[in-house]
Amino acid sequence: LKEVANLPFPFLTQLLGHAFDKPGKRVRPAITLLSANFHPHDRETTETMAAAVELLHMATLIHDDTVDNSSIRRGRSTLSSLWGGNVAVLAGDYVFAASATFVCEPGNIRVIRRFSETIMELSTGELDEIAEAYKINQTMEQYLRRIYNKTASLFATAGEAGAVLSDAPEETVRSLKDYSRNLGMAFQIVDDILDFEGTQEELGKPVGNDLSRGILTLPSILALERYPDSSPIVELFQNPNDENYRKRAVEMIQNSSIIDDSYDRANQYCRKALDSLTDLAPNPSRDSLEELVGFVAVRRN
Amino acid sequence: LKEVANLPFPFLTQLLGHAFDKPGKRVRPAITLLSANFHPHDRETTETMAAAVELLHMATLIHDDTVDNSSIRRGRSTLSSLWGGNVAVLAGDYVFAASATFVCEPGNIRVIRRFSETIMELSTGELDEIAEAYKINQTMEQYLRRIYNKTASLFATAGEAGAVLSDAPEETVRSLKDYSRNLGMAFQIVDDILDFEGTQEELGKPVGNDLSRGILTLPSILALERYPDSSPIVELFQNPNDENYRKRAVEMIQNSSIIDDSYDRANQYCRKALDSLTDLAPNPSRDSLEELVGFVAVRRN
Repeated sequence: LKEVANLPFPFLTQLLGHAFDKPGKRVRPAITLLSANFHPHDRETTETMAAAVELLHMATLIHDDTVDNSSIRRGRSTLSSLWGGNVAVLAGDYVFAASATFVCEPGNIRVIRRFSETIMELSTGELDEIAEAYKINQTMEQYLRRIYNKTASLFATAGEAGAVLSDAPEETVRSLKDYSRNLGMAFQIVDDILDFEGTQEELGKPVGNDLSRGILTLPSILALERYPDSSPIVELFQNPNDENYRKRAVEMIQNSSIIDDSYDRANQYCRKALDSLTDLAPNPSRDSLEELVGFVAVRRN
Repeated sequence: LKEVANLPFPFLTQLLGHAFDKPGKRVRPAITLLSANFHPHDRETTETMAAAVELLHMATLIHDDTVDNSSIRRGRSTLSSLWGGNVAVLAGDYVFAASATFVCEPGNIRVIRRFSETIMELSTGELDEIAEAYKINQTMEQYLRRIYNKTASLFATAGEAGAVLSDAPEETVRSLKDYSRNLGMAFQIVDDILDFEGTQEELGKPVGNDLSRGILTLPSILALERYPDSSPIVELFQNPNDENYRKRAVEMIQNSSIIDDSYDRANQYCRKALDSLTDLAPNPSRDSLEELVGFVAVRRN
């Protein structure tokens, strides 16, 4: 990644140096590298692809932070808060393109095409979130489609790319893609649950932050299903700046079985992910993919 | 293009329907189609590539309008002014990705790679413009590199893609790429001159708008070379909101030979573009490419 930031333009070097300085958990590139390990392959090729996956993820983070007006990411100030949204939009475009250049390296059209579809799905998911903000009548199906677009699509691509580049047979590709997609679904559901757990001090942002921004996620959709009338969520969406409604909605969710039920949903996806691995030959990479599922499930406080 | 806007997401359909409703001059896709006509080729393939070129151009316009806070484009309100910068960022991402999907269609890695490099060059050019805003000491070389990145890079790619997809020999590819790059340079220089010509009524924006935004282009760089001391441009950059300095700078440029000298520069690029065509077999497409140069040169009022 340092390579991408090493450019003849000092300003861009400075921007990307900042963006790349504090790495995230790097779950996605790990999936690519592990998914390639079921068949002999060129290590350099899959590493390039893993870098492309992480770069694409970072590009979306840069644009998401700009869109959401977020000022902190991974404990550091965001590009948009330091240099303004304008610079962040263009720096994000640059990182998207850098990712595309890496994706082209191995010369595999199927993988390249899957990447461009993924970018469409990512932006569709984010746009859908904006379009549906503060709308109460959202179905579970809509939510699941949105988190597929926002998160699970890139997970699936990470696994598929690793498998395809190792010339794995089609069933193996499908198993690893299914694994990764289900892991991505679980990952996003747990992320959405965490927004309702703990305290403001632990989260570094208000509890129920998604709700204040008019975004329904699994816990709030379950809450609306259960208490369709006179829900504090309905009242919050009609009065988005009223702190009391936010607190009442959060308390209602925390003091019910909704958090547990939401974890059940996430764990269903974790089990599906594990099931997808059973047809693969046992090897240390399969073990690591299994452990990765545990890591997602374990995010519960 | 309608195909791209035809989606299961009503909001996205609405956004893209708006963005695609009023077509521009479509110079870039014309270059792709014409550049393919020196060798037998599959018409559908080059049409897909021409659509990809135009989509990439539109994606950059959507992001540029967002970055510049522009409210009008081609006589219509911009996406960012109607739906906000956030939506425009994501819609632009979507159109970038749709363009990438089209680029993948013919399955030519060289063309795909050239596209991703072009997106890097486009964003580098725009970032450089922001980074250098209100800085007086900019060289001609910097300006030329910036307009290559901002404009001529995609022109060059449009020509190269058409030639490569018709399996043209390498010299023909090079001639068409050189033609397109030089045409792109002329195109941007004329665009930059037009910002100083005419009246506010004709332009639909204040004369010298680039200067007010701290952006030096060919006319203002020539002006600074000629009158290095006590230039109203220096004073304008120190007092960006002072209308009088803007008017004085514009008058200085309009009442000198700078506009003519700038057109000379643009015409040099036009001549280079025409020179690049001389090695190609004469045919109706070569005639059309020649006419396209006349169209750029003729933009002079």
